[in-house]
Amino acid sequence: MAVGQCDFPVMPDIPGITLGTACAGIKQTVKDDILVIAMAEESICAAVFTQNAFCAAPVLVAKANLAHAPRWLLINSGNANAGTGEQGMQDALKTCADLAEVVGGAANQVLPFSTGVIGQPLPTDKIKTALPAAINALSPSNWDKAARAIMTTDTFPKGVSRTIMLDGQSVTINGISKGAGMIQPNMATMLGFIATDAKMDQPLLQACLADAVEQSFNRITVDGDTSTNDACVLMASGASYAPEILAGTEHYRLFADAVIEVCKQLAEWIIRDGEGATKLMRIVVEEALNCAESVQVGKTIAHSPLVKTAFFAGDPNWGRILAAVGRAGVENMILKDVEIYLDEVCIVRNGGRDPAYTEEAGQQVMNREEITVTVKLGRGNASQEVLTCDFSYDYVKINAEYRT
Amino acid sequence: MAVGQCDFPVMPDIPGITLGTACAGIKQTVKDDILVIAMAEESICAAVFTQNAFCAAPVLVAKANLAHAPRWLLINSGNANAGTGEQGMQDALKTCADLAEVVGGAANQVLPFSTGVIGQPLPTDKIKTALPAAINALSPSNWDKAARAIMTTDTFPKGVSRTIMLDGQSVTINGISKGAGMIQPNMATMLGFIATDAKMDQPLLQACLADAVEQSFNRITVDGDTSTNDACVLMASGASYAPEILAGTEHYRLFADAVIEVCKQLAEWIIRDGEGATKLMRIVVEEALNCAESVQVGKTIAHSPLVKTAFFAGDPNWGRILAAVGRAGVENMILKDVEIYLDEVCIVRNGGRDPAYTEEAGQQVMNREEITVTVKLGRGNASQEVLTCDFSYDYVKINAEYRT
Repeated sequence: MAVGQCDFPVMPDIPGITLGTACAGIKQTVKDDILVIAMAEESICAAVFTQNAFCAAPVLVAKANLAHAPRWLLINSGNANAGTGEQGMQDALKTCADLAEVVGGAANQVLPFSTGVIGQPLPTDKIKTALPAAINALSPSNWDKAARAIMTTDTFPKGVSRTIMLDGQSVTINGISKGAGMIQPNMATMLGFIATDAKMDQPLLQACLADAVEQSFNRITVDGDTSTNDACVLMASGASYAPEILAGTEHYRLFADAVIEVCKQLAEWIIRDGEGATKLMRIVVEEALNCAESVQVGKTIAHSPLVKTAFFAGDPNWGRILAAVGRAGVENMILKDVEIYLDEVCIVRNGGRDPAYTEEAGQQVMNREEITVTVKLGRGNASQEVLTCDFSYDYVKINAEYRT
Repeated sequence: MAVGQCDFPVMPDIPGITLGTACAGIKQTVKDDILVIAMAEESICAAVFTQNAFCAAPVLVAKANLAHAPRWLLINSGNANAGTGEQGMQDALKTCADLAEVVGGAANQVLPFSTGVIGQPLPTDKIKTALPAAINALSPSNWDKAARAIMTTDTFPKGVSRTIMLDGQSVTINGISKGAGMIQPNMATMLGFIATDAKMDQPLLQACLADAVEQSFNRITVDGDTSTNDACVLMASGASYAPEILAGTEHYRLFADAVIEVCKQLAEWIIRDGEGATKLMRIVVEEALNCAESVQVGKTIAHSPLVKTAFFAGDPNWGRILAAVGRAGVENMILKDVEIYLDEVCIVRNGGRDPAYTEEAGQQVMNREEITVTVKLGRGNASQEVLTCDFSYDYVKINAEYRT
């Protein structure tokens, strides 16, 4: 059950990037659950990781190996290899070594990623057995299969592609991601893998990714929980015929905008597929003193279980939105200056219900599947947007039954 | 549906304090929904209020009137008179004036309190019509009726009584409270009214209340939402034969401990009656650097929808607890030093699952109705407790249907 139409797009090949999947039977036995992404020599790689203090073992290994000119990504779903102590570290390193052996590379050129249940030992033997099949399947056309292999409670595969022209030559950016619970600001259960054939140096690629993630994945929340495994990787093969992209140029601006677009769309897919989601809510906080304040208010609204259940019910209970704004921790906020809108309908003005507001108008908006909540704080000019979904019976059901 | 046995206790009269209820038909027509508490002359009164920036109108009026030697409390359920703008202020002041007229007192000696739906105009005419009946009913024996009159989504009335002896003379403390959603640290949808016949000066009474609230109501959370209307009042009639209680004395210590006990028990009732609650969870965070850090970790666990749904399912999914500790924002936490227990069962040790842990042992604890989660951070000696409840289908149901 996802909000809106979420078809997997046509995704062109990225020269220099191949993907292969296989079924290791980590949690289920019928679905491909490992994904190998291979990068041609000379490729570069940028990544950002979860801010949870208890990173999973694969995150620690991937962070370390990022410095060794990575050539392969090894991703498994069904098991997070988190909360697994010293054994987890050994297991993450072993999967890297196993892959390196099959492809004849170095173990520290493999970045491992795991997503799924926390606290269970990673079945490294199952993964080792399935690795040759995944390597055998490596092809530039496997984006759809790759997006499916990394799914856990996701209900649809998530992919986005953008192509830009630089001096008459194309540069393509493909991205896939997975959600769907523990989605919170600062990288969640979310994994995102983005590849491009652009040519640039690694520090610029890292800056580009960090900026894009801040404006996309760090602006979404399903339940306020930050996972131990989140990561987003941006690979660049440099195989495009377009010239090298340099910092501060128009080419960089075009490229960076396209990466942001890809990340924003992937982030939106994650929210549309939020656990139990029936509605997509854009929380736009305008007239804040600064961006941080705007995001703070937006996230407080987006995290409120009372707001989220009201949207699930289609109840224009704006009092709950007002209460959330009030407890967001903004100093010296003046209630009379605050305005709140549901789509085009003003509900709060001058510290109370807008005199022109009618329950019918509010109800009409709440019946929609996608709703924008606009809060004007009346304090400044900063504006930011946070994406979230509603809170339904199915959220409880999915999370109460996840391990069974 | 509440967790455990929650019978209303026998509550003795408090000399100098009388209570009267009546049905104004604010939201329902069958239930008493206004409560007047009258204090004898010479009584003193302390209060703490919500930290939500958008206080409801009655909170603003009560705060102001606290300085005018209050003699009456007027509480209504069914309507919060919050988000009601200038009209809300006029309405709150009008109910005070209406009460003052009936009793022949001053309007600014009335403290008004409202709880219920946000953003609806307060039906002051209905309240005015019902006031004479409530005044007529004033009696020192109405604690049970009073506790029922202030209920909203609460499923049982909440009362606690303690009596201590000072120099052979009794001092009694009675308290009533209501929950049940929007229950968060820093005062929630919660109203608490506590009365005693002790004799003491107002600043000492205020200090005593502030301290007790910090250790009780500010340590509970249902859903992380802080209401616009929370308040807790401590009235002292001074009618006891016991000597005046002075700061820094053994008598004060005895009295303050009893007030804390009353507040803690009232807070626990609120959690046992949390919306949709099926389990009571005590989150004890030990070995923290300081109390603030301990509370911060405790609340992060207590707010996590993933932890709360796992407890609802009776699933010993300790990975979610570990992930919550990891994102609590504590600097330089070392995973290997952290231990986590479900009641007597150790589940996490040395950065991973305790080797001695079995799913059966974890499951046995999870089947209990009351569970203590103990987290040892291995950083210091501070320890604090936060109370919360699980997250069930009924939480969603109650909050999705509240206004209908």
